[in-house]
Amino acid sequence: MITQPASGSNDVDLDAPIRALVWGEYRHERREPHVAEIYPDGMHTTIKEGIEENLGDAAVVSTTTLDEPEHGLTEEVLANTDVLLWWGHAAHGEVADEIVERVHQHVLSGMGLIVLHSGHWSKIFGKLMGTTCTLRWRSEHDRELVWTVDRTHPIARGIPHPIEIEAQEMYGEQFDIPTPDELIFISSFSGGEVFRSGCTFRRGNGKIFYFSPGDQDFPVYHHKDVRRVIANGVQWARPAVPRTLPTLRRHETGEFFAGKEYQSAWQNRQA
Amino acid sequence: MITQPASGSNDVDLDAPIRALVWGEYRHERREPHVAEIYPDGMHTTIKEGIEENLGDAAVVSTTTLDEPEHGLTEEVLANTDVLLWWGHAAHGEVADEIVERVHQHVLSGMGLIVLHSGHWSKIFGKLMGTTCTLRWRSEHDRELVWTVDRTHPIARGIPHPIEIEAQEMYGEQFDIPTPDELIFISSFSGGEVFRSGCTFRRGNGKIFYFSPGDQDFPVYHHKDVRRVIANGVQWARPAVPRTLPTLRRHETGEFFAGKEYQSAWQNRQA
Amino acid sequence: MITQPASGSNDVDLDAPIRALVWGEYRHERREPHVAEIYPDGMHTTIKEGIEENLGDAAVVSTTTLDEPEHGLTEEVLANTDVLLWWGHAAHGEVADEIVERVHQHVLSGMGLIVLHSGHWSKIFGKLMGTTCTLRWRSEHDRELVWTVDRTHPIARGIPHPIEIEAQEMYGEQFDIPTPDELIFISSFSGGEVFRSGCTFRRGNGKIFYFSPGDQDFPVYHHKDVRRVIANGVQWARPAVPRTLPTLRRHETGEFFAGKEYQSAWQNRQA
Amino acid sequence: MITQPASGSNDVDLDAPIRALVWGEYRHERREPHVAEIYPDGMHTTIKEGIEENLGDAAVVSTTTLDEPEHGLTEEVLANTDVLLWWGHAAHGEVADEIVERVHQHVLSGMGLIVLHSGHWSKIFGKLMGTTCTLRWRSEHDRELVWTVDRTHPIARGIPHPIEIEAQEMYGEQFDIPTPDELIFISSFSGGEVFRSGCTFRRGNGKIFYFSPGDQDFPVYHHKDVRRVIANGVQWARPAVPRTLPTLRRHETGEFFAGKEYQSAWQNRQA
Repeated sequence: MITQPASGSNDVDLDAPIRALVWGEYRHERREPHVAEIYPDGMHTTIKEGIEENLGDAAVVSTTTLDEPEHGLTEEVLANTDVLLWWGHAAHGEVADEIVERVHQHVLSGMGLIVLHSGHWSKIFGKLMGTTCTLRWRSEHDRELVWTVDRTHPIARGIPHPIEIEAQEMYGEQFDIPTPDELIFISSFSGGEVFRSGCTFRRGNGKIFYFSPGDQDFPVYHHKDVRRVIANGVQWARPAVPRTLPTLRRHETGEFFAGKEYQSAWQNRQA
Repeated sequence: MITQPASGSNDVDLDAPIRALVWGEYRHERREPHVAEIYPDGMHTTIKEGIEENLGDAAVVSTTTLDEPEHGLTEEVLANTDVLLWWGHAAHGEVADEIVERVHQHVLSGMGLIVLHSGHWSKIFGKLMGTTCTLRWRSEHDRELVWTVDRTHPIARGIPHPIEIEAQEMYGEQFDIPTPDELIFISSFSGGEVFRSGCTFRRGNGKIFYFSPGDQDFPVYHHKDVRRVIANGVQWARPAVPRTLPTLRRHETGEFFAGKEYQSAWQNRQA
Repeated sequence: MITQPASGSNDVDLDAPIRALVWGEYRHERREPHVAEIYPDGMHTTIKEGIEENLGDAAVVSTTTLDEPEHGLTEEVLANTDVLLWWGHAAHGEVADEIVERVHQHVLSGMGLIVLHSGHWSKIFGKLMGTTCTLRWRSEHDRELVWTVDRTHPIARGIPHPIEIEAQEMYGEQFDIPTPDELIFISSFSGGEVFRSGCTFRRGNGKIFYFSPGDQDFPVYHHKDVRRVIANGVQWARPAVPRTLPTLRRHETGEFFAGKEYQSAWQNRQA
Repeated sequence: MITQPASGSNDVDLDAPIRALVWGEYRHERREPHVAEIYPDGMHTTIKEGIEENLGDAAVVSTTTLDEPEHGLTEEVLANTDVLLWWGHAAHGEVADEIVERVHQHVLSGMGLIVLHSGHWSKIFGKLMGTTCTLRWRSEHDRELVWTVDRTHPIARGIPHPIEIEAQEMYGEQFDIPTPDELIFISSFSGGEVFRSGCTFRRGNGKIFYFSPGDQDFPVYHHKDVRRVIANGVQWARPAVPRTLPTLRRHETGEFFAGKEYQSAWQNRQA
């Protein structure tokens, strides 16, 4: 499915619009009236609008949800997605392992992934991180302040320092993730907790951005600065190389470029 | 199985001998005469002896192999292991997923893990890294030079710069791993390839060291400096905290220490 | 000289052409015929042409040299430079401390800096790194292979893996620099040495890229791939925020944005 | 002064007691009665006692202060110091550049350095970091909570999560430092600010730990957990290699170990 790039080419077209896909669990919004009031068309739709508001023609944004066939994430859909955004919470366990495996392969092959808020505990994030991705939490209307620690990072572009979020669920350390490649934001909460709220990770050929603000109970995805950060994340996470899964290859002495496939050990591993 | 530590304690006894366990696949040595000649009692035994040679009374080292019941890695064995060393190659696929899951939980709970050479493609390393862990390779008697880039790291203690290994399998970049927390060694090979040959990673409460020198076809585990590095790794990877799996906990405002368990989302994820 | 940005704005225009300035020591080319043959108009001119070749209208590139008044680096010139490239070797000691201080302030305020080859031992690089920036070397026509370890990095865009450079001065580890924020390239040399040849560092609001290929005795800056890397570096290092020196500020409780200047301790430090 | 190690040896005796030296500015304590009340023998003495309390025979701790000849930091004193701790605030500007240069050379040669609180703005820390080391601050009795984000780090051993400090000066982001090699602690303050309060850096052969809690106006160095962290830091920062300044050396092809000195460029740089 995912093939090697045309010989010699390691380049992509960065002027093409970014094809972003917002994946929403879309359960709270249909079951809980107070959530539906904040997000009448689903959180995924609000997130989509925030990206469009910031990127305009530079992005083509679509949405899909858990209850679509194959959770809306067919091989064809993923092959045509540059950056996938993931919001899930109550139904992480309902996401089929086969689909998680498929998304995983696409991320390692170069698809960008933005994991939002409670997505920290999604199967796909856990599979990419290799850790429990647990944390401490409380849902009590804490004020969250999002402080930028890496001011020159493209994801921090054009936002105030700090971002003020009037009311939010508290997420606190220790957040059981690998040390991020880049730590962009640290949040504090009224209760005194802190959280690494904006982190990047590179896995295979894919770029991953985790951003914690956003909860079904609060209108966080209507917040101007949160929307800017997510849009910045979409730009940052776009594929940097043609979609290719890293593979194990044998290279003879002095032969640096072609290599030969070597499947047996991998197949053994899969056995 | 893995329980929360006694309230308030975050300390361990660093004067106790380290309980190290060398896990060997132990197939090449029994099937291939030229390997048996180099490692008559199995590679795991030679690795064990190298640790004992360097650490003396500071470590108690044992071994086990793939073909033992439960691959020799019962819950009880792991609960009594401080640092697990892993050498596998031809039979990665035969390691049962259930055992991999068990080892994974112990690493995240604080057990140290040292992954050697072809263990880069083991199920446990892949699960902890979240990537394909592929690379380029060739087995043609390349000379390997292991250069230290982080001279103050405890794992680099007491070794020459570079370490010279007369003949070795070539492992080359791109090595598809997450950016290491610490890059200690970079190797070159006669053919011109380079490899990040000594890398550390922290995952959950566990410390992981990947070290690439070592192949069944060459007497690398008899090499004095390679043995020293592995012994250094054992010391470095010993548990820093009481064995505990990070868990998601709810903390009320102003309550920082106890927290309450929160199982439903996790259970959902497992569903 | 360097002032605080207009209140509230943290944004820059990324569509404007990048103003790049190549600074050349320009001594070898005037004194050594074999260097002049390779670089008749100076290395800085060849480097400039390589950037123009790759970036076209996206950059406006100029040059200046050591022997210009104030080494060509007046306050006005620096204030109008987005990215400064630095090639020096034999005359590091002749660069006036006052100019080094000025460049340092501009980098910390957001000007990008690309340090090339023997610039590793320039005063400005040493001042930004805080270390000796020493290494091992030999000038004996080694072949250099430049391997990419961070394939998704924008600086690695569009180049082969590895880049082959027929003949080059050898630079080897240990390279006494702080751990880079990002390690993009590792080189090997025919003699067996390795080198972290492409590294990024963020200091203050400035982005720094060190790239080691390039020596007065070899035509490295005529190499297509080397030119592409340098041009990629120029794009990557462009300022991400309005030119501002980070300052110490006092903020009253609940006042997050304006702050008050606090000069006395700084002045003490300068005394 | 600082010489190359005996040929071939890259090892140190880790069983010898650590020779720690606490350097105190010792001005506030002599001029301000409320500070003298908290620290009657000077902050340096209290810091010394905290280390002794935790390390016992494993360390030999002494103190010296700004107003001693050569600030108490003669070549002989530094040559016999394994780890230097630095507390300064009001008189950073009075520290002679020559002494700063001397300390810098010793750190790059392997001496450990622990920079405390307002030492963030000392000349030696600025010289090692290469940045302005500025931050935001307020002295208003904020409560500080010190959260551990890297639980397995030796510096985090044996302390609660979080450490509670009843009253402290506020230090907030953006803290203009290079990205730390390891981020161990993040603090929050009652006012809502956050700060990277425990960071490590490796520079040359030296290990550096910055720890922000501690101010002349509050009894922070009497706090049990703060004392433990500082003592842990002393253990962590002890030299890992024989005291040696990294130097530039020429190595002929195939000659990996001895090298030849190469002084001219360095001398040029100093010229």
